[in-house]
Amino acid sequence: MRYLLLVTYNGKNYSGYQIQPNATTIQEVLENAIKTITKQTVTCVASGRTDAGVSAYMQPVHFDIEKELNEQKFLHSLNGILPEDIKVLSINKTNLHARFSAKRKTYLYKMYVSDIAQPLMSDALQINPNLNFKEMQKFTKLLIGTHDFVGFRASGGSNESTIRTIYSAKLKKQGNYLYFTITGNGFLYKMVRNIVGTMLKIGENKINLKEIKPTLFSTFKATNTAKPEYLYLLNVEY
Amino acid sequence: MRYLLLVTYNGKNYSGYQIQPNATTIQEVLENAIKTITKQTVTCVASGRTDAGVSAYMQPVHFDIEKELNEQKFLHSLNGILPEDIKVLSINKTNLHARFSAKRKTYLYKMYVSDIAQPLMSDALQINPNLNFKEMQKFTKLLIGTHDFVGFRASGGSNESTIRTIYSAKLKKQGNYLYFTITGNGFLYKMVRNIVGTMLKIGENKINLKEIKPTLFSTFKATNTAKPEYLYLLNVEY
Repeated sequence: MRYLLLVTYNGKNYSGYQIQPNATTIQEVLENAIKTITKQTVTCVASGRTDAGVSAYMQPVHFDIEKELNEQKFLHSLNGILPEDIKVLSINKTNLHARFSAKRKTYLYKMYVSDIAQPLMSDALQINPNLNFKEMQKFTKLLIGTHDFVGFRASGGSNESTIRTIYSAKLKKQGNYLYFTITGNGFLYKMVRNIVGTMLKIGENKINLKEIKPTLFSTFKATNTAKPEYLYLLNVEY
Repeated sequence: MRYLLLVTYNGKNYSGYQIQPNATTIQEVLENAIKTITKQTVTCVASGRTDAGVSAYMQPVHFDIEKELNEQKFLHSLNGILPEDIKVLSINKTNLHARFSAKRKTYLYKMYVSDIAQPLMSDALQINPNLNFKEMQKFTKLLIGTHDFVGFRASGGSNESTIRTIYSAKLKKQGNYLYFTITGNGFLYKMVRNIVGTMLKIGENKINLKEIKPTLFSTFKATNTAKPEYLYLLNVEY
Protein backbone atom coordinates (compact mmCIF):
# COMPACT_ATOMS: atom_id res chain seq x y z
CA MET A 1 0.00 0.00 0.00
CA ARG A 2 1.45 3.37 -1.00
CA TYR A 3 0.26 6.68 0.44
CA LEU A 4 0.96 10.21 -0.73
CA LEU A 5 1.11 12.96 1.86
CA LEU A 6 1.10 16.65 1.06
CA VAL A 7 3.37 18.11 3.72
CA THR A 8 3.86 21.80 4.57
CA TYR A 9 6.70 23.02 6.74
CA ASN A 10 8.61 26.00 7.95
CA GLY A 11 12.17 24.83 7.41
CA LYS A 12 13.91 27.49 9.51
CA ASN A 13 14.68 25.15 12.40
CA TYR A 14 15.61 22.09 10.34
CA SER A 15 18.72 20.82 8.57
CA GLY A 16 16.73 20.24 5.40
CA TYR A 17 14.41 17.44 4.33
CA GLN A 18 16.70 14.44 4.09
CA ILE A 19 17.74 12.34 7.08
CA GLN A 20 21.35 12.82 8.18
CA PRO A 21 23.29 12.03 11.33
CA ASN A 22 23.47 14.54 14.20
CA ALA A 23 20.89 16.94 12.75
CA THR A 24 17.13 17.31 12.93
CA THR A 25 15.48 16.94 9.54
CA ILE A 26 11.90 17.04 8.27
CA GLN A 27 12.10 13.41 7.09
CA GLU A 28 13.20 12.17 10.49
CA VAL A 29 10.41 13.99 12.35
CA LEU A 30 7.83 12.75 9.85
CA GLU A 31 9.01 9.13 9.92
CA ASN A 32 9.13 9.12 13.72
CA ALA A 33 5.58 10.48 13.93
CA ILE A 34 4.31 7.82 11.50
CA LYS A 35 6.10 5.12 13.50
CA THR A 36 4.47 6.34 16.71
CA ILE A 37 1.05 5.81 15.14
CA THR A 38 1.56 2.72 12.99
CA LYS A 39 4.34 0.98 14.98
CA GLN A 40 6.01 0.42 11.62
CA THR A 41 9.22 1.90 10.24
CA VAL A 42 8.56 3.63 6.92
CA THR A 43 10.72 5.64 4.54
CA CYS A 44 9.25 8.99 3.52
CA VAL A 45 10.32 9.79 -0.05
CA ALA A 46 9.83 13.46 -0.95
CA SER A 47 9.48 15.00 -4.42
CA GLY A 48 12.96 16.34 -3.81
CA ARG A 49 15.26 17.24 -0.95
CA THR A 50 14.95 20.77 0.30
CA ASP A 51 18.12 22.32 1.75
CA ALA A 52 18.61 23.39 5.36
CA GLY A 53 16.34 26.35 6.09
CA VAL A 54 14.14 25.96 3.00
CA SER A 55 10.36 25.79 3.55
CA ALA A 56 7.54 24.12 1.64
CA TYR A 57 3.96 25.19 1.12
CA MET A 58 3.36 21.77 -0.40
CA GLN A 59 5.88 18.96 -0.45
CA PRO A 60 4.56 15.61 -1.78
CA VAL A 61 5.93 12.65 0.17
CA HIS A 62 5.15 8.97 -0.36
CA PHE A 63 5.64 5.97 1.89
CA ASP A 64 4.86 2.27 1.57
CA ILE A 65 3.20 0.35 4.35
CA GLU A 66 1.70 -3.15 4.59
CA LYS A 67 -1.53 -2.42 6.40
CA GLU A 68 -4.27 -0.16 5.12
CA LEU A 69 -4.76 3.08 7.07
CA ASN A 70 -7.92 4.83 8.16
CA GLU A 71 -6.89 7.94 6.29
CA GLN A 72 -8.80 10.66 8.14
CA LYS A 73 -8.01 9.21 11.55
CA PHE A 74 -4.35 8.79 10.61
CA LEU A 75 -4.14 12.38 9.33
CA HIS A 76 -5.65 13.72 12.53
CA SER A 77 -3.30 11.67 14.75
CA LEU A 78 -0.28 12.58 12.65
CA ASN A 79 -0.95 16.32 12.90
CA GLY A 80 -1.50 15.90 16.63
CA ILE A 81 1.99 14.44 17.02
CA LEU A 82 3.86 16.65 14.53
CA PRO A 83 5.37 19.92 15.80
CA GLU A 84 3.84 23.30 14.90
CA ASP A 85 6.27 23.86 12.04
CA ILE A 86 5.46 20.63 10.15
CA LYS A 87 1.89 19.66 9.20
CA VAL A 88 0.32 17.25 6.73
CA LEU A 89 -2.42 18.76 4.56
CA SER A 90 -3.79 15.57 3.04
CA ILE A 91 -3.27 11.85 2.60
CA ASN A 92 -4.33 9.70 -0.35
CA LYS A 93 -3.56 6.27 -1.75
CA THR A 94 -1.30 6.58 -4.75
CA ASN A 95 0.53 4.70 -7.47
CA LEU A 96 2.91 7.60 -7.96
CA HIS A 97 6.51 7.83 -6.87
CA ALA A 98 6.85 11.22 -5.14
CA ARG A 99 10.19 11.91 -6.77
CA PHE A 100 10.33 10.03 -10.06
CA SER A 101 6.75 10.76 -11.12
CA ALA A 102 7.07 14.52 -10.55
CA LYS A 103 6.59 16.40 -13.84
CA ARG A 104 6.85 20.07 -12.83
CA LYS A 105 8.02 21.84 -9.72
CA THR A 106 7.51 25.45 -8.73
CA TYR A 107 9.67 27.34 -6.28
CA LEU A 108 9.02 30.77 -4.78
CA TYR A 109 11.69 33.14 -3.51
CA LYS A 110 10.31 35.96 -1.34
CA MET A 111 11.96 39.37 -1.22
CA TYR A 112 10.94 42.84 -0.09
CA VAL A 113 12.23 46.19 -1.09
CA SER A 114 13.27 48.42 1.79
CA ASP A 115 16.14 50.49 3.13
CA ILE A 116 15.25 49.29 6.61
CA ALA A 117 14.84 45.71 7.86
CA GLN A 118 11.13 45.00 8.45
CA PRO A 119 10.31 42.86 11.50
CA LEU A 120 6.96 41.85 9.98
CA MET A 121 8.53 40.66 6.73
CA SER A 122 11.01 38.21 8.21
CA ASP A 123 9.76 35.57 5.76
CA ALA A 124 11.45 37.44 2.90
CA LEU A 125 14.90 38.74 1.93
CA GLN A 126 15.41 42.48 2.37
CA ILE A 127 16.70 43.96 -0.87
CA ASN A 128 17.91 47.40 -1.84
CA PRO A 129 15.36 49.76 -3.46
CA ASN A 130 18.10 50.84 -5.90
CA LEU A 131 18.27 47.46 -7.65
CA ASN A 132 17.71 47.52 -11.39
CA PHE A 133 14.42 45.60 -11.66
CA LYS A 134 14.18 45.87 -15.43
CA GLU A 135 17.49 44.05 -15.85
CA MET A 136 16.46 41.46 -13.26
CA GLN A 137 13.22 40.88 -15.15
CA LYS A 138 15.08 40.50 -18.46
CA PHE A 139 17.25 37.85 -16.81
CA THR A 140 14.21 35.84 -15.68
CA LYS A 141 13.04 35.70 -19.32
CA LEU A 142 16.40 34.24 -20.43
CA LEU A 143 15.86 31.31 -18.10
CA ILE A 144 12.79 30.02 -19.94
CA GLY A 145 13.39 27.04 -22.22
CA THR A 146 15.63 23.98 -22.23
CA HIS A 147 19.20 24.83 -21.28
CA ASP A 148 22.31 23.35 -19.70
CA PHE A 149 22.18 24.85 -16.20
CA VAL A 150 25.49 23.40 -15.02
CA GLY A 151 26.74 26.94 -14.25
CA PHE A 152 23.93 27.34 -11.74
CA ARG A 153 24.62 24.05 -9.97
CA ALA A 154 26.51 24.10 -6.70
CA SER A 155 29.65 22.04 -6.62
CA GLY A 156 28.80 18.82 -4.88
CA GLY A 157 25.99 18.04 -7.31
CA SER A 158 25.85 14.54 -8.76
CA ASN A 159 26.75 13.30 -12.24
CA GLU A 160 23.20 13.46 -13.57
CA SER A 161 22.38 15.45 -16.69
CA THR A 162 22.51 19.19 -16.10
CA ILE A 163 19.95 20.00 -18.78
CA ARG A 164 16.63 21.25 -17.44
CA THR A 165 13.53 22.83 -18.92
CA ILE A 166 12.14 25.99 -17.34
CA TYR A 167 8.48 26.57 -18.20
CA SER A 168 8.01 29.83 -16.39
CA ALA A 169 10.09 32.37 -14.45
CA LYS A 170 8.52 35.55 -13.14
CA LEU A 171 9.49 38.45 -10.93
CA LYS A 172 6.39 40.18 -9.61
CA LYS A 173 5.74 43.03 -7.16
CA GLN A 174 2.90 42.54 -4.70
CA GLY A 175 2.60 45.34 -2.18
CA ASN A 176 6.04 45.72 -0.63
CA TYR A 177 6.94 42.17 -1.56
CA LEU A 178 8.82 41.03 -4.63
CA TYR A 179 8.09 37.43 -5.56
CA PHE A 180 10.25 35.33 -7.86
CA THR A 181 8.52 32.14 -8.99
CA ILE A 182 10.10 29.55 -11.24
CA THR A 183 8.55 26.39 -12.68
CA GLY A 184 10.64 23.66 -14.28
CA ASN A 185 10.81 19.93 -14.92
CA GLY A 186 13.43 19.75 -12.17
CA PHE A 187 16.22 21.74 -10.56
CA LEU A 188 19.90 21.01 -9.94
CA TYR A 189 21.45 21.26 -6.48
CA LYS A 190 21.06 24.89 -5.26
CA MET A 191 20.02 25.94 -8.78
CA VAL A 192 17.13 28.19 -7.66
CA ARG A 193 19.24 29.92 -5.01
CA ASN A 194 22.07 30.43 -7.54
CA ILE A 195 19.60 31.86 -10.05
CA VAL A 196 18.28 34.30 -7.42
CA GLY A 197 21.81 35.18 -6.30
CA THR A 198 22.78 35.90 -9.91
CA MET A 199 19.58 37.92 -10.43
CA LEU A 200 20.50 40.09 -7.43
CA LYS A 201 24.03 40.68 -8.79
CA ILE A 202 22.43 41.74 -12.08
CA GLY A 203 20.16 44.09 -10.13
CA GLU A 204 23.24 45.60 -8.49
CA ASN A 205 24.84 46.01 -11.94
CA LYS A 206 27.68 43.77 -10.79
CA ILE A 207 26.95 41.34 -13.59
CA ASN A 208 26.17 42.69 -17.03
CA LEU A 209 23.22 40.88 -18.52
CA LYS A 210 25.03 40.78 -21.86
CA GLU A 211 27.50 38.33 -20.35
CA ILE A 212 24.70 35.83 -19.85
CA LYS A 213 23.30 34.03 -22.87
CA PRO A 214 21.11 30.97 -22.46
CA THR A 215 23.20 29.13 -25.06
CA LEU A 216 26.22 29.83 -22.87
CA PHE A 217 24.65 29.06 -19.47
CA SER A 218 27.02 26.10 -19.23
CA THR A 219 30.08 28.35 -19.37
CA PHE A 220 28.68 30.86 -16.87
CA LYS A 221 29.55 30.25 -13.23
CA ALA A 222 27.15 31.57 -10.58
CA THR A 223 29.09 32.89 -7.60
CA ASN A 224 26.28 34.23 -5.41
CA THR A 225 23.90 31.80 -3.69
CA ALA A 226 20.81 33.45 -2.17
CA LYS A 227 20.03 32.55 1.46
CA PRO A 228 17.90 29.41 1.93
CA GLU A 229 15.40 30.73 4.49
CA TYR A 230 13.45 32.76 1.95
CA LEU A 231 13.06 29.90 -0.53
CA TYR A 232 9.76 27.98 -0.60
CA LEU A 233 8.72 24.89 -2.52
CA LEU A 234 5.34 26.06 -3.76
CA ASN A 235 3.91 23.28 -5.91
CA VAL A 236 4.69 19.93 -7.50
CA GLU A 237 2.67 18.54 -10.41
CA TYR A 238 2.41 14.90 -11.50
CA MET B 1 12.50 69.89 19.69
CA ARG B 2 9.89 67.22 18.94
CA TYR B 3 10.53 64.25 16.66
CA LEU B 4 8.08 61.78 15.19
CA LEU B 5 9.26 58.24 14.59
CA LEU B 6 7.38 55.68 12.53
CA VAL B 7 8.07 52.44 14.35
CA THR B 8 7.34 48.90 13.12
CA TYR B 9 7.45 45.89 15.41
CA ASN B 10 6.59 42.27 15.78
CA GLY B 11 4.92 42.30 19.21
CA LYS B 12 5.00 38.54 19.84
CA ASN B 13 7.81 38.71 22.39
CA TYR B 14 6.70 41.90 24.16
CA SER B 15 4.24 42.75 26.91
CA GLY B 16 2.70 45.47 24.77
CA TYR B 17 3.79 49.01 23.98
CA GLN B 18 3.54 50.77 27.32
CA ILE B 19 6.25 50.61 29.98
CA GLN B 20 5.38 48.47 32.99
CA PRO B 21 7.38 46.90 35.79
CA ASN B 22 8.85 43.39 35.40
CA ALA B 23 8.01 43.03 31.73
CA THR B 24 9.74 43.92 28.47
CA THR B 25 7.81 46.45 26.43
CA ILE B 26 8.33 48.20 23.10
CA GLN B 27 8.45 51.62 24.79
CA GLU B 28 11.20 50.55 27.18
CA VAL B 29 13.39 49.08 24.42
CA LEU B 30 12.89 52.18 22.28
CA GLU B 31 13.62 54.65 25.09
CA ASN B 32 16.72 52.72 26.14
CA ALA B 33 18.03 52.70 22.58
CA ILE B 34 17.47 56.46 22.25
CA LYS B 35 19.21 57.03 25.60
CA THR B 36 22.21 54.99 24.44
CA ILE B 37 22.64 57.34 21.48
CA THR B 38 21.64 60.73 22.92
CA LYS B 39 22.60 60.19 26.58
CA GLN B 40 19.25 61.76 27.40
CA THR B 41 16.16 60.21 28.95
CA VAL B 42 13.15 60.70 26.71
CA THR B 43 9.54 59.57 26.87
CA CYS B 44 8.24 57.88 23.72
CA VAL B 45 4.54 58.68 23.31
CA ALA B 46 2.80 56.36 20.85
CA SER B 47 -0.42 56.97 18.91
CA GLY B 48 -1.92 54.44 21.28
CA ARG B 49 -0.91 51.54 23.46
CA THR B 50 -0.88 48.18 21.74
CA ASP B 51 -1.61 45.17 23.95
CA ALA B 52 0.80 42.35 24.72
CA GLY B 53 1.45 40.36 21.56
CA VAL B 54 0.02 42.95 19.16
CA SER B 55 2.23 44.07 16.24
CA ALA B 56 2.48 47.29 14.26
CA TYR B 57 3.32 47.89 10.63
CA MET B 58 3.45 51.58 11.47
CA GLN B 59 3.19 53.02 14.95
CA PRO B 60 3.81 56.79 15.19
CA VAL B 61 5.78 57.74 18.30
CA HIS B 62 6.91 61.19 19.37
CA PHE B 63 9.53 62.31 21.85
CA ASP B 64 10.84 65.69 22.98
CA ILE B 65 14.53 66.38 23.26
CA GLU B 66 16.58 69.54 23.83
CA LYS B 67 19.28 69.14 21.25
CA GLU B 68 18.72 68.86 17.54
CA LEU B 69 19.48 65.47 16.00
CA ASN B 70 21.23 64.58 12.78
CA GLU B 71 18.19 62.68 11.59
CA GLN B 72 19.69 60.20 9.13
CA LYS B 73 22.63 59.42 11.38
CA PHE B 74 20.33 59.01 14.37
CA LEU B 75 17.99 56.69 12.41
CA HIS B 76 20.90 54.54 11.32
CA SER B 77 22.35 54.30 14.85
CA LEU B 78 18.94 53.60 16.35
CA ASN B 79 18.22 50.70 14.00
CA GLY B 80 21.70 49.36 14.69
CA ILE B 81 20.91 49.18 18.42
CA LEU B 82 17.29 48.04 18.22
CA PRO B 83 16.57 44.29 18.16
CA GLU B 84 15.40 42.53 14.97
CA ASP B 85 11.75 42.71 15.98
CA ILE B 86 11.62 46.51 16.43
CA LYS B 87 12.78 48.95 13.74
CA VAL B 88 12.23 52.63 13.01
CA LEU B 89 11.17 53.42 9.45
CA SER B 90 11.58 57.19 9.53
CA ILE B 91 12.22 60.22 11.72
CA ASN B 92 10.96 63.74 11.18
CA LYS B 93 10.58 66.94 13.16
CA THR B 94 6.96 67.44 14.12
CA ASN B 95 4.49 69.69 15.89
CA LEU B 96 2.05 66.83 16.28
CA HIS B 97 1.25 64.90 19.43
CA ALA B 98 1.43 61.22 18.44
CA ARG B 99 -1.67 60.38 20.47
CA PHE B 100 -3.85 63.49 20.68
CA SER B 101 -3.33 64.63 17.08
CA ALA B 102 -4.26 61.22 15.61
CA LYS B 103 -7.37 61.50 13.44
CA ARG B 104 -7.87 58.00 12.07
CA LYS B 105 -6.39 54.63 12.94
CA THR B 106 -6.52 51.42 10.95
CA TYR B 107 -6.10 47.96 12.41
CA LEU B 108 -5.69 44.70 10.53
CA TYR B 109 -6.64 41.28 11.89
CA LYS B 110 -5.15 38.40 9.88
CA MET B 111 -6.92 35.07 9.57
CA TYR B 112 -6.68 32.07 7.26
CA VAL B 113 -9.21 29.46 6.41
CA SER B 114 -8.02 25.89 6.88
CA ASP B 115 -8.91 22.61 8.56
CA ILE B 116 -5.23 22.13 9.31
CA ALA B 117 -2.81 24.51 11.05
CA GLN B 118 -0.41 25.98 8.50
CA PRO B 119 3.19 26.45 9.65
CA LEU B 120 3.78 29.12 7.00
CA MET B 121 0.77 31.19 8.09
CA SER B 122 1.70 31.58 11.73
CA ASP B 123 1.10 35.33 11.40
CA ALA B 124 -2.65 34.71 11.15
CA LEU B 125 -5.44 33.01 13.11
CA GLN B 126 -6.54 29.64 11.76
CA ILE B 127 -10.30 29.64 11.28
CA ASN B 128 -12.77 26.98 10.30
CA PRO B 129 -13.75 26.75 6.60
CA ASN B 130 -17.36 26.21 7.71
CA LEU B 131 -17.78 29.73 9.11
CA ASN B 132 -20.65 31.72 7.67
CA PHE B 133 -18.77 34.48 5.85
CA LYS B 134 -21.86 36.24 4.56
CA GLU B 135 -23.11 36.82 8.09
CA MET B 136 -19.64 37.93 9.19
CA GLN B 137 -19.54 40.39 6.33
CA LYS B 138 -22.99 41.74 7.21
CA PHE B 139 -21.73 42.33 10.75
CA THR B 140 -18.75 44.37 9.53
CA LYS B 141 -21.20 46.68 7.73
CA LEU B 142 -23.16 47.30 10.95
CA LEU B 143 -20.00 48.66 12.56
CA ILE B 144 -19.71 51.62 10.21
CA GLY B 145 -20.92 54.93 11.62
CA THR B 146 -20.92 56.65 15.02
CA HIS B 147 -22.02 54.31 17.80
CA ASP B 148 -21.62 53.69 21.50
CA PHE B 149 -19.15 50.79 21.51
CA VAL B 150 -19.19 50.24 25.29
CA GLY B 151 -20.29 46.62 24.74
CA PHE B 152 -17.07 45.97 22.84
CA ARG B 153 -14.85 47.50 25.51
CA ALA B 154 -12.99 45.18 27.86
CA SER B 155 -13.68 45.76 31.52
CA GLY B 156 -10.78 47.75 32.85
CA GLY B 157 -11.29 50.52 30.30
CA SER B 158 -11.25 54.09 31.57
CA ASN B 159 -14.12 56.53 32.08
CA GLU B 160 -13.67 58.23 28.72
CA SER B 161 -16.56 58.48 26.27
CA THR B 162 -17.37 55.14 24.65
CA ILE B 163 -18.68 56.69 21.45
CA ARG B 164 -16.50 56.11 18.42
CA THR B 165 -16.84 56.61 14.68
CA ILE B 166 -15.94 53.76 12.35
CA TYR B 167 -15.20 54.94 8.82
CA SER B 168 -14.54 51.58 7.24
CA ALA B 169 -14.72 47.89 8.18
CA LYS B 170 -13.96 45.21 5.61
CA LEU B 171 -13.53 41.47 5.53
CA LYS B 172 -11.61 40.45 2.43
CA LYS B 173 -10.24 37.17 1.09
CA GLN B 174 -6.77 37.25 -0.40
CA GLY B 175 -5.46 33.87 -1.42
CA ASN B 176 -5.86 31.64 1.62
CA TYR B 177 -5.87 34.66 3.92
CA LEU B 178 -8.89 36.48 5.27
CA TYR B 179 -8.12 40.08 6.23
CA PHE B 180 -10.31 42.18 8.50
CA THR B 181 -9.41 45.88 8.36
CA ILE B 182 -11.12 48.54 10.40
CA THR B 183 -10.59 52.31 10.35
CA GLY B 184 -11.97 54.59 13.05
CA ASN B 185 -11.33 57.83 14.89
CA GLY B 186 -10.17 55.74 17.83
CA PHE B 187 -10.75 52.42 19.56
CA LEU B 188 -11.67 51.46 23.12
CA TYR B 189 -9.60 49.04 25.18
CA LYS B 190 -9.59 45.66 23.34
CA MET B 191 -12.38 46.92 21.06
CA VAL B 192 -10.91 45.52 17.83
CA ARG B 193 -10.25 42.12 19.36
CA ASN B 194 -13.77 42.03 20.81
CA ILE B 195 -15.21 42.94 17.43
CA VAL B 196 -13.23 40.13 15.77
CA GLY B 197 -14.22 37.69 18.54
CA THR B 198 -17.88 38.61 18.06
CA MET B 199 -17.53 38.30 14.28
CA LEU B 200 -16.17 34.77 14.70
CA LYS B 201 -19.10 33.81 16.98
CA ILE B 202 -21.44 35.14 14.32
CA GLY B 203 -19.57 33.04 11.74
CA GLU B 204 -20.12 29.97 13.95
CA ASN B 205 -23.82 30.83 14.19
CA LYS B 206 -23.42 31.13 17.96
CA ILE B 207 -24.61 34.72 17.87
CA ASN B 208 -27.55 35.61 15.67
CA LEU B 209 -26.86 38.78 13.76
CA LYS B 210 -30.42 39.93 14.47
CA GLU B 211 -29.45 40.32 18.14
CA ILE B 212 -26.95 42.98 17.19
CA LYS B 213 -28.22 46.38 16.16
CA PRO B 214 -25.87 49.37 15.99
CA THR B 215 -28.38 51.44 17.99
CA LEU B 216 -28.14 48.79 20.69
CA PHE B 217 -24.38 48.24 20.64
CA SER B 218 -24.28 49.71 24.14
CA THR B 219 -26.53 46.94 25.52
CA PHE B 220 -24.64 44.16 23.71
CA LYS B 221 -21.81 42.54 25.64
CA ALA B 222 -18.99 40.95 23.67
CA THR B 223 -17.80 37.76 25.37
CA ASN B 224 -15.18 36.55 22.93
CA THR B 225 -11.86 38.40 22.60
CA ALA B 226 -9.75 37.35 19.62
CA LYS B 227 -6.10 36.51 20.34
CA PRO B 228 -3.71 39.48 20.26
CA GLU B 229 -0.90 37.97 18.19
CA TYR B 230 -2.79 38.26 14.90
CA LEU B 231 -3.72 41.93 15.38
CA TYR B 232 -1.65 44.60 13.60
CA LEU B 233 -1.75 48.37 13.81
CA LEU B 234 -1.64 49.17 10.10
CA ASN B 235 -1.85 52.93 9.77
CA VAL B 236 -2.42 56.16 11.71
CA GLU B 237 -3.47 59.39 9.99
CA TYR B 238 -3.03 62.91 11.34
